[in-house]
Amino acid sequence: MSNFGALDLSLVAPFEKAFREAVSAVGAAPLLANAQEFDSVEEAVSDCSLVVGTTAIGNRELQHELRSLGDAAKKISRRLASGRVALLFGSEKTGLTNKELSHCHWLLRIPTREEHRSMNLAQAVAIVVYELSRNTCKPTAKSKLPTAKADMEILARINAALGEALDISGYIHPRSAASAQEKLRRMLVRFDLRAADAAVLLGMLRKILWKLKSS
Amino acid sequence: MSNFGALDLSLVAPFEKAFREAVSAVGAAPLLANAQEFDSVEEAVSDCSLVVGTTAIGNRELQHELRSLGDAAKKISRRLASGRVALLFGSEKTGLTNKELSHCHWLLRIPTREEHRSMNLAQAVAIVVYELSRNTCKPTAKSKLPTAKADMEILARINAALGEALDISGYIHPRSAASAQEKLRRMLVRFDLRAADAAVLLGMLRKILWKLKSS
Repeated sequence: MSNFGALDLSLVAPFEKAFREAVSAVGAAPLLANAQEFDSVEEAVSDCSLVVGTTAIGNRELQHELRSLGDAAKKISRRLASGRVALLFGSEKTGLTNKELSHCHWLLRIPTREEHRSMNLAQAVAIVVYELSRNTCKPTAKSKLPTAKADMEILARINAALGEALDISGYIHPRSAASAQEKLRRMLVRFDLRAADAAVLLGMLRKILWKLKSS
Repeated sequence: MSNFGALDLSLVAPFEKAFREAVSAVGAAPLLANAQEFDSVEEAVSDCSLVVGTTAIGNRELQHELRSLGDAAKKISRRLASGRVALLFGSEKTGLTNKELSHCHWLLRIPTREEHRSMNLAQAVAIVVYELSRNTCKPTAKSKLPTAKADMEILARINAALGEALDISGYIHPRSAASAQEKLRRMLVRFDLRAADAAVLLGMLRKILWKLKSS
């Protein structure tokens, strides 16, 4: 990451804190010292307007659009001009869970040969940031242009409000509440909302929720 | 390597043989089982017609042409159509020695940010073979076309014959024999000889050597 200028590392519920002192990461000490830890993917990606998951495509059926790294890097670079982008890597053994995938707008795959798709995590990260560094144009200041996309924080708030409204409405069965939240999130992420539209939507939902609660 | 179809691993005087059982290399067991060990770089690259070294460019003055990975990959891919190419990686701590560099036709560098050039070896290898796999066209059968380049084996024989001839001639001082061999090798590699020309050159040198020895 440090070699290619990807300087913000966020870890979700890491197994051990020893990574900060990783002696083999010559030159990357500042990056590790500044790494942030989060309890959930949701918190980790909250300030990003695009979340891209990574996959080797195993048995799991994909519910997401899938792009090859070369195309993905071009798309991500354009988006970096107007906001932050999260690249989400799963655990080395199992990859991203369905719940983790529900935070992703789309997925990227590093093109490997068919016979050997599963990659070492550190090498996968290195290749993705290398490819991105080839494509990246200078980012402008974090902007809130009319066309700027909604960040994940407002999506989470929309999700919460909508979930609660649906719950009160009896749309969501209590037993399937968790998977319903996931499905909602997937849907919202697919919408690829503009920031301004997200704010309007959230306002609408809160109004509806207020009405539901007060009646 | 296995992910991207680079299936021939050669190791020069590896510290330990444990690499063959590396458990973390999921899916790469056949590659490791087939890895070859050599006592010298010279033996390891003998069947290659192009040897490309890798460098982060440290303090060492470069005596070789240097290409960025993107350009290097295109050039290597074209060469793979008519013969074998060796990619030479040095030790993680010190990189390639001057002696090891003397086997290289030219060098490639992975473009990193200025502030952090030194890379993890496994990640560097992954990025190089990834970039190559993007560029590689199908290799034709190992050919000996008129324009095929000399492989390193014949260069080594030329080097030996020329060295002996120069030695007998008193051109090479015994005390500097080792560095003279290196300089010779660099020069021969720079020549980028065609296979047919190399054979002719070797014949000439042997004739000269026979004359030197018999007089």
